[in-house]
Amino acid sequence: MEQWKSITDCGAFAALESCAQNPFDLTRPGALTPERLLQFRCSGPEFDLLYGCQRVTSEVLDLLQSLADECQLVEQFRQMRRGTVMNRIHGWPSEERQVLHTSSRDLFSAAPACLPATKAAQKELAKLKIFLNEVENGGICNSRGEPFVNLIHIGIGGSDLGPRSIYEALRSYKKKGRKVSFISNVDPDDAAAVLDGLDLSRTLVSVVSKSGTTLETLSNEILVRTALREAGLDPAKHCLAVTGEASPMDNPERYLRSFYMYDYIGGRFSSTSVVGTVMLGFALGYEKVMEFLEGAAMVDEAAEEGDIRSNLPLLLALLGIWNHNFLDMPTVAVLPYSQALHRFPAHLQQCDMESNGKSIQRNGKELAIKSGPVVWGEPGTNGQHAFYQLLHQGTEKVAIEFIGFRKSQRGKDMGIQGTCSQQKLVANLLAQSLALAIGKGDENPNKEFAGNHANSLLMGERLTARNMGALLAIYEAKIVFQGFCWNVNSFDQEGVQLGKVLAGRILSAMRGEGEQGALDNELLRAAGME
Amino acid sequence: MEQWKSITDCGAFAALESCAQNPFDLTRPGALTPERLLQFRCSGPEFDLLYGCQRVTSEVLDLLQSLADECQLVEQFRQMRRGTVMNRIHGWPSEERQVLHTSSRDLFSAAPACLPATKAAQKELAKLKIFLNEVENGGICNSRGEPFVNLIHIGIGGSDLGPRSIYEALRSYKKKGRKVSFISNVDPDDAAAVLDGLDLSRTLVSVVSKSGTTLETLSNEILVRTALREAGLDPAKHCLAVTGEASPMDNPERYLRSFYMYDYIGGRFSSTSVVGTVMLGFALGYEKVMEFLEGAAMVDEAAEEGDIRSNLPLLLALLGIWNHNFLDMPTVAVLPYSQALHRFPAHLQQCDMESNGKSIQRNGKELAIKSGPVVWGEPGTNGQHAFYQLLHQGTEKVAIEFIGFRKSQRGKDMGIQGTCSQQKLVANLLAQSLALAIGKGDENPNKEFAGNHANSLLMGERLTARNMGALLAIYEAKIVFQGFCWNVNSFDQEGVQLGKVLAGRILSAMRGEGEQGALDNELLRAAGME
Repeated sequence: MEQWKSITDCGAFAALESCAQNPFDLTRPGALTPERLLQFRCSGPEFDLLYGCQRVTSEVLDLLQSLADECQLVEQFRQMRRGTVMNRIHGWPSEERQVLHTSSRDLFSAAPACLPATKAAQKELAKLKIFLNEVENGGICNSRGEPFVNLIHIGIGGSDLGPRSIYEALRSYKKKGRKVSFISNVDPDDAAAVLDGLDLSRTLVSVVSKSGTTLETLSNEILVRTALREAGLDPAKHCLAVTGEASPMDNPERYLRSFYMYDYIGGRFSSTSVVGTVMLGFALGYEKVMEFLEGAAMVDEAAEEGDIRSNLPLLLALLGIWNHNFLDMPTVAVLPYSQALHRFPAHLQQCDMESNGKSIQRNGKELAIKSGPVVWGEPGTNGQHAFYQLLHQGTEKVAIEFIGFRKSQRGKDMGIQGTCSQQKLVANLLAQSLALAIGKGDENPNKEFAGNHANSLLMGERLTARNMGALLAIYEAKIVFQGFCWNVNSFDQEGVQLGKVLAGRILSAMRGEGEQGALDNELLRAAGME
Repeated sequence: MEQWKSITDCGAFAALESCAQNPFDLTRPGALTPERLLQFRCSGPEFDLLYGCQRVTSEVLDLLQSLADECQLVEQFRQMRRGTVMNRIHGWPSEERQVLHTSSRDLFSAAPACLPATKAAQKELAKLKIFLNEVENGGICNSRGEPFVNLIHIGIGGSDLGPRSIYEALRSYKKKGRKVSFISNVDPDDAAAVLDGLDLSRTLVSVVSKSGTTLETLSNEILVRTALREAGLDPAKHCLAVTGEASPMDNPERYLRSFYMYDYIGGRFSSTSVVGTVMLGFALGYEKVMEFLEGAAMVDEAAEEGDIRSNLPLLLALLGIWNHNFLDMPTVAVLPYSQALHRFPAHLQQCDMESNGKSIQRNGKELAIKSGPVVWGEPGTNGQHAFYQLLHQGTEKVAIEFIGFRKSQRGKDMGIQGTCSQQKLVANLLAQSLALAIGKGDENPNKEFAGNHANSLLMGERLTARNMGALLAIYEAKIVFQGFCWNVNSFDQEGVQLGKVLAGRILSAMRGEGEQGALDNELLRAAGME
């Protein structure tokens, strides 16, 4: 099995550290020229990346290219797509799995990168197509013969945030009358709020858990099944299972249909698998799902380009490495200027931090540098009236990734004072990018802006299903490339285990089965939970 | 005018730096004892703070007490509540205003801290009570004599995030049939999504802007007024103005009613003023609003206690200072184990980062230490399946503030495997607090947990209106106390100005009024916006 390099093993690493002592000064008069804006621009499928407001020079980009080459980032990505076992720690027991989320959308090429996985994905999509037709034409309906118009999606973490954020992003394209709700939290108020006022007789329930044993999801499923029964309905006629083949949930006596997910697709990378597509298909129809998948597939293909200046997700990843490891920015703010993307930063927060929040390299040795940053963000222009104050004048250094669109999604707009709202939105986006970069002097120290706040801008035409698929795949590839840079296994999540064990122990204590005088009991007392 | 000290001017500062070289080790066997859990616990109105899992000793707490005393933190808080001009920069032009958000709930004491401000608040509440009665009894209704059941709240930043997060927190107590929607973003898709399918004839529109000139809010107001007119309705019979007295919006010809906000309450601290109460009153009724205000008032009173071990918000503030300035944690994660609080971290992100994201002290000199951290967070248990991986095993240090409740809000729950969902929720919360603190050794380096991740836990009985008021006031006071520690002016926001100026220039360029060949034009071209 091949062993991969970390960026710290590369010759370019020291040279980049030296460049970082004196990074490009965006505030210097004449630094940010029109030529720079046009030169530091990378076009990929559906999006352009404008990075003139990053603190990079051609020299830095050349060194980042060397890093990419020495670490074989693209080669690793190619191997990942083709089914090499990338989810592993060399020399230690680990998950030992392939990493094939890309296969779930590799449906448009004459030569898919990993044919067996693509065939498996096609099989589930064929089942989905038939199912959606049956829902549409009344072959599947409730006991009174009425069509299903609602769907409750029950899942948590990877089975929730991706699908939910994509649904929010694309809900303006919803089929008429259809509505999707989500339940994730084991907090019983979550399910109660969703069930409140919903016509369950017209509702499908999609339960999403790869293992079929996730505590939160099963608890919520039981709550919803109980509500169905209380409404005089047969849960088996309303519930869908999205799960691993042969999991405890793969049971036709309890579910109307089963759709299968596979071990080689991690939860946080599963939005383009049945985890996302069953719900999206119900909401938007099968054709929009295919557009969404095609957008993602286009990015995956393009991400195999070796030149970092022409490979958008790779460039985004390396700019992130530059900001995080060399310019010492501990957090990344993802700021979409699109209200429809209001939950997308939360999905990226999960996908990025769960993948790259690691301290051990793939060779089992401790990391010598920092791995994944804290990822956060909210939509603009809202954020401008909130936390941007800290971005401009605070003492924390934040790497900023803007996302914007030339056109609005719904096209409902009007001119006020000579410009429409969409123009105001984009003008604010571009203005923030510039303001953060160049700053402003002032005699009054409280009105000074230091500038030199590195930022880049992903610019798309309009937030469509295809465009959303591309955006998702850009960030998935960025995260994977960064994990390769740090030589961590981006595909496991050992950090969730300890909490599970301790929660089980505390639940025992709650049932009175705990040891007298133990810490758990005292913690319950301190929390007032006796 | 009094000049205040920064914590760096205090004798205790160097001693704390020395303690921070070797902070309390939570992972040492026997470190986290039942006694410690019960001792490091502070009770305030509606909440207990458990801080045994912070890396503090009695010595550190004593030194933090010295900091608080030397910086006169409580004295400053007292002066703030009594109307001293705290929003200022000594020696430079600044806003020169009082800071009296606490007055908007100082309604339950025989001797309010600032009587004129309390009287002004009472006057608006009396107007609100009459208005809500009229809506209830049909004195105010639509042109067909039908009652209003919907309200659209239009505002941005401080006029949006606080009210919105509190509405989400308390929506389970809504008056039957009432519904509130929010529009904030200048993105035209935001308004379009809210208007889609809403019965405007039964809808009130509350427009919230102190100045009456906020770009986003006015644009959205025009979009909504146009939609009202297109539906054959008279906007003046549907729209409410929540604004400064005599602002351009204070116009009875265009608005059904005006409710007044004052210069001495900043937007991000305005949730307990008419900015929040008009909307909350419509949704929940006047009585719940008074409970909410009373919860906040109780905390404000209690925050004047001088002993940090008995002053919950002050202690929370100082533990934050310890983690941020001495243990070098650049970010704070606020993690509520309550789905109803899902937007509360976004409000705190705004309130905290806009208040304390500053680099200049109140004497005009540059800060010698870091001011406000990056604040972020999502509800548990959802986060456990997402970003907690990084908290447990990543390379970034994050200060963690958990929030939990002993009882669920809606009380709809059921036992599964011997415990109900609420118990599972709390068990997970307590387990995470312990797991982060104590960690776990393992032969397999990928399964090791380093531990020593500082965290505290705010524990309440049940998320009610009163409890929510208390929670809000705890965090407002925490933010104010921390600003005093850093000696920054937490009440201005100069950092939003530059973006506004540049956005105006780019809008000119969009209208073709810009200079040929200027950077703005080239940026528009690079972004594909020609």
